[in-house]
Amino acid sequence: MKMTVNEAAAWLLERDDFLLLTHVRPDGDTLCSAAALARALRSCGKNAWLLENPETTTRFRSRLDGYFAPADFRPQHIVTVDTATESLFPDVSAPYKGKVELSIDHHGSNTGYAENVCVQADRAACGEIILEVIDALHAPLDAQTADFLYIAISTDTGCFAYGNTTAQTLAAAARLVAAGADNRAINKEFFRTRGKSRIAVEGAVLAGLTFYCGGRIAAIRLTQAMIQKAGATEDDLENIASLPAEIEGVDAGVTIRELAPGRSKISLRTTDAVNASRVCGLFGGGGHVQAAGCTIDAEPLEAQRQIVAALEESLA
Amino acid sequence: MKMTVNEAAAWLLERDDFLLLTHVRPDGDTLCSAAALARALRSCGKNAWLLENPETTTRFRSRLDGYFAPADFRPQHIVTVDTATESLFPDVSAPYKGKVELSIDHHGSNTGYAENVCVQADRAACGEIILEVIDALHAPLDAQTADFLYIAISTDTGCFAYGNTTAQTLAAAARLVAAGADNRAINKEFFRTRGKSRIAVEGAVLAGLTFYCGGRIAAIRLTQAMIQKAGATEDDLENIASLPAEIEGVDAGVTIRELAPGRSKISLRTTDAVNASRVCGLFGGGGHVQAAGCTIDAEPLEAQRQIVAALEESLA
Repeated sequence: MKMTVNEAAAWLLERDDFLLLTHVRPDGDTLCSAAALARALRSCGKNAWLLENPETTTRFRSRLDGYFAPADFRPQHIVTVDTATESLFPDVSAPYKGKVELSIDHHGSNTGYAENVCVQADRAACGEIILEVIDALHAPLDAQTADFLYIAISTDTGCFAYGNTTAQTLAAAARLVAAGADNRAINKEFFRTRGKSRIAVEGAVLAGLTFYCGGRIAAIRLTQAMIQKAGATEDDLENIASLPAEIEGVDAGVTIRELAPGRSKISLRTTDAVNASRVCGLFGGGGHVQAAGCTIDAEPLEAQRQIVAALEESLA
Repeated sequence: MKMTVNEAAAWLLERDDFLLLTHVRPDGDTLCSAAALARALRSCGKNAWLLENPETTTRFRSRLDGYFAPADFRPQHIVTVDTATESLFPDVSAPYKGKVELSIDHHGSNTGYAENVCVQADRAACGEIILEVIDALHAPLDAQTADFLYIAISTDTGCFAYGNTTAQTLAAAARLVAAGADNRAINKEFFRTRGKSRIAVEGAVLAGLTFYCGGRIAAIRLTQAMIQKAGATEDDLENIASLPAEIEGVDAGVTIRELAPGRSKISLRTTDAVNASRVCGLFGGGGHVQAAGCTIDAEPLEAQRQIVAALEESLA
């Protein structure tokens, strides 16, 4: 059943003992939307916990102390946040497939796997919807909740720079900052600090930046050797795939990441000039029209040659 | 005389034939705040022009067609926007020193050089004040005006990521986007596109990144040779001085730019741990506590040695 925000809030208020599930490779929006919702439900006298997500990176884990469910928690109701399909469940969520009662999400592609879905596809972040759910719960918007939601919204919009940012997004952020969200500290941590390892990786990657097709294709390679030399973690590698696509005049930005010897993962970001999903489909991958991926069984340089050849053909 | 926004608007409505002055090395806030004000005054039936500012970079010049005053314009009233002191006047504004009747500004350091000052030091951008002036003029907030003000505010806040961003800033941006500001295109142009030359300069600069003092000092050098090899313009070099200071754990970020053979300009950004103004003062420079500059008569590497030595002493 499709639910409005008010219906979802009413449904939550009638129940108790919630387990909130986040998606695989959890980002700021899924984790902090879930934490904000848990906090709001607790302020309404409910038990609400996030299911431990083993891929949670350090920067988020440190903020989520007290939110991951203890081993003995017996949930009555399963809710997902920011998760479009069950195929995005991490392994730990596998036991809950087919058992989700409410899915709160901003993906238009939500498959409707849950008994009830509260989807608003025009929102930049799930955090925007959670803010409305919190209002509908009449839960307080305290500084901690505002911090969670500010992280959710700002990380999903690249600090309000991505094309998904709307007037509603900015108005929500204004409200969160007025409610005490520490946007200064959060922005410094998430958007204005680059780790030494990140800087080292960027330097190595830029040294190998190659243009093709008169500058319409830009490719970078990220090898295991580079990652190890820089001492880089997954946090350090975040968004590095957006780098080649952000160069002026580039229609296809390619990032080749060495997964293992002889195995390379391709991330492709494109403008309207190239269908990223179609090109990646040639290699057994897929995704969106402007952002897709695939895996090629080859060393990075050879994988680069193959994907660039396919792109050159597509652009010709 | 100090003026409120309403008083400034009333003062403007009683007069006509305005020349709007912008500051030296003009940025998005001074140029686009002035253009938005000119447009609003025109919609009230006034003549209003910006004084040509020769340092206007390409990306702004293309947007300001029809706003720079023709040679035969005879202004009756001189207004400055976003300009704290007459020492920030570009040379073309020199004839108007001592003749400014209204200064609209967000710098607490405004010296009061104008007959009337409308200063709100708690605003992240002058564009926020201009938005209120436009309201007080009862001028329409059309999409073009909203674009100007969105550029003014977003560029002065690093797309809402800098510490000066308040709830009011975000609320103003929400209003501008609702009024038709094309935040998607503006963000893409100003914050999500890196020119090929910019990328080349960043790569060269990162290759020379050096840490001192256990990582508390980070220094980069920008030589004439690097700039020429990359084909970089001033637009490409914007904000590059913030790069070393944004590295995790760095208390002093130093950028050494070769101005001419044997002459180097130092830009220093610091945390609370170092007084940037005091350290630059040792070399005859100055500025703010966390952002200052100076010039050293030496080649970049030697200038780096000198400023790093002073910083090591300051951190010791």
